[in-house]
Amino acid sequence: MARVYNFSAGPATMPVPVLEEIKEELLDYKGSGMSVMEMSHRSKVFQTILEEAEQDLRDLMNIPDNYKVLFIQGGATLQFAMLPINLKKNGVFDYIVTGQWSKKAAEEAKKFGKVNIVATSKDKNFSYIPDCSDLPIDDDADYVYICENETVHGTTFQTLPNTKGKILVSDQSSMFLSKPVNVSDYGVIYGGVQKNVGPAGLAIVIIREDLINENLDESVPTYLRYDIHAKNDSLYNTPNCWAIYVCGKVFKYLKSIGGLEKMAEINKEKAKILYDFLDESKLFKGTVDPSVRSLMNVPFITGSDEKDADVVAKTKAAGFENLKGHKSVGGLRASIYNAMPKEGVEALVEFLKKYEKENA
Amino acid sequence: MARVYNFSAGPATMPVPVLEEIKEELLDYKGSGMSVMEMSHRSKVFQTILEEAEQDLRDLMNIPDNYKVLFIQGGATLQFAMLPINLKKNGVFDYIVTGQWSKKAAEEAKKFGKVNIVATSKDKNFSYIPDCSDLPIDDDADYVYICENETVHGTTFQTLPNTKGKILVSDQSSMFLSKPVNVSDYGVIYGGVQKNVGPAGLAIVIIREDLINENLDESVPTYLRYDIHAKNDSLYNTPNCWAIYVCGKVFKYLKSIGGLEKMAEINKEKAKILYDFLDESKLFKGTVDPSVRSLMNVPFITGSDEKDADVVAKTKAAGFENLKGHKSVGGLRASIYNAMPKEGVEALVEFLKKYEKENA
Repeated sequence: MARVYNFSAGPATMPVPVLEEIKEELLDYKGSGMSVMEMSHRSKVFQTILEEAEQDLRDLMNIPDNYKVLFIQGGATLQFAMLPINLKKNGVFDYIVTGQWSKKAAEEAKKFGKVNIVATSKDKNFSYIPDCSDLPIDDDADYVYICENETVHGTTFQTLPNTKGKILVSDQSSMFLSKPVNVSDYGVIYGGVQKNVGPAGLAIVIIREDLINENLDESVPTYLRYDIHAKNDSLYNTPNCWAIYVCGKVFKYLKSIGGLEKMAEINKEKAKILYDFLDESKLFKGTVDPSVRSLMNVPFITGSDEKDADVVAKTKAAGFENLKGHKSVGGLRASIYNAMPKEGVEALVEFLKKYEKENA
Repeated sequence: MARVYNFSAGPATMPVPVLEEIKEELLDYKGSGMSVMEMSHRSKVFQTILEEAEQDLRDLMNIPDNYKVLFIQGGATLQFAMLPINLKKNGVFDYIVTGQWSKKAAEEAKKFGKVNIVATSKDKNFSYIPDCSDLPIDDDADYVYICENETVHGTTFQTLPNTKGKILVSDQSSMFLSKPVNVSDYGVIYGGVQKNVGPAGLAIVIIREDLINENLDESVPTYLRYDIHAKNDSLYNTPNCWAIYVCGKVFKYLKSIGGLEKMAEINKEKAKILYDFLDESKLFKGTVDPSVRSLMNVPFITGSDEKDADVVAKTKAAGFENLKGHKSVGGLRASIYNAMPKEGVEALVEFLKKYEKENA
């Protein structure tokens, strides 16, 4: 068995020790005589898996007691609709648009109310984060929305926007569990787990309890109601049990290596190796404002589409997978999530250095 | 490793050869150097998994070319809403209510239009299937809805209702792939896969192309639109890749053992062993009209709640899991899906016979 270095933006690489445990338990989970895939979601053995997953996440993120943790199918895409539907009071939603994902979220929200784009970095192809210290927040805004790390464009908010007292909603999909965050700063944090945690098919929604509306319009589909998921502890219907199990393993793994403080340290160190190289290179350069560089998604270009394609092909041949950049940015993108080992980043930089030398 | 006989109603037992293959491929799928959980859903390797899964399902069910196959998250619960939302023309929906699941579906549909209950077996706790040969189908009905096999109550439609020309929509969750069906008889067949196929978190929707409405109201959440899933071949957003992969393996397995004709034969044989015992037993008896007995879900009782509980406890101690009946029926329920081996049913009957003798 030869594992590759997988730089996919999501679904993405996972910790090998977690995969090995899963493999070991595949036909018989801890003496239950069955696979987790075969377990009734109402059985005691699965209940324990679910409860431990939630508790470990609470420990990792230091989630206050007045926040609910929900495990919901449909990915971030379904959340783009569930958020405005469930948080709607005045029907006014303020969005900060800093890339593809916040743009998509804002477009979906228009179905359910008035959307104000209170700031955007669209003018420079989303290569920076606008100053969000004094935005024209609507007095009636039900919330202010950000995508805190833009997967495609490779930017991260360094400080949270000043929402002028309004609720902050943050899509953390591509930075989920990459560093400590102060949950109390947010009304809702959510993320699709398939980038930085586990297998696709699950979004985790961390929502302040008082924001869960039980008096939604009768016409809202039951599955789209946070209050239904909350009241039933994510077991209103059969959840994505497998993804919850795998994410639970990743949570335990992160605790075992020292939690999110340690993870943030490792992530900074890994990203620095790549960014330092890009800053020194005469061939490759990063595409975003250095002050808001993502520690997770690193887009870079040579300046020539032909050369970009050549690098992608040669890295692939050398065992570095999924380095092709998103079509809206071009070039290359290395997603170096939690589970990407430092050795993977070092090997990539080594390879790119060699390529640069040979193609000087 | 000791495997139990798992009679869970869902998530449920899976074929051991499939689980073994998955285990083998867990860290390195066919030389890709990664787990299926880590693969970009846009990568060639995953595209092949998705395409083969669809093709194998088409082969197994003999799905005509004018039907689309969609892989959607959210389970049958989300379909309860998506069906009326997407099939709405006149806003009139006719439901046949034969148990818990068709009842839930009908309740959800009320959010989106007028629901007529055109037949029901509620008067006898859903223990039979009403005569559906001449129902008061509404002239304006957008469709007629059935749950073809009721998981909780253990009944199956033996003949399809006369819909008087209206579209038939069938929830086949707990009988999906248990026998051949004539897809052309239906407008939509759908099922949550976690009962008779694979892991939870995926519904498969087989829909006649002309029923896919592209002119839905702007206010419909994007994720809830069949046209969006259809246009994007189930890749509008990241799907439940893992469940698609596992279901694909089950499809190949079913083909390898002789397809749905063979599966139906095996299922009949297995169910007969259990029903023959129940018909002969002086202690245990089935709870439904023998003419509509499910081959998948077999509820039975002793007539004493105390004795029922004792049997459940003793079977569990003997390695037969999840035999407790649903609270609305009581007693016991053996779900004997495709993957339950004949030996499991035989062993259970043996055990029940012994129990009966010892407690005569």
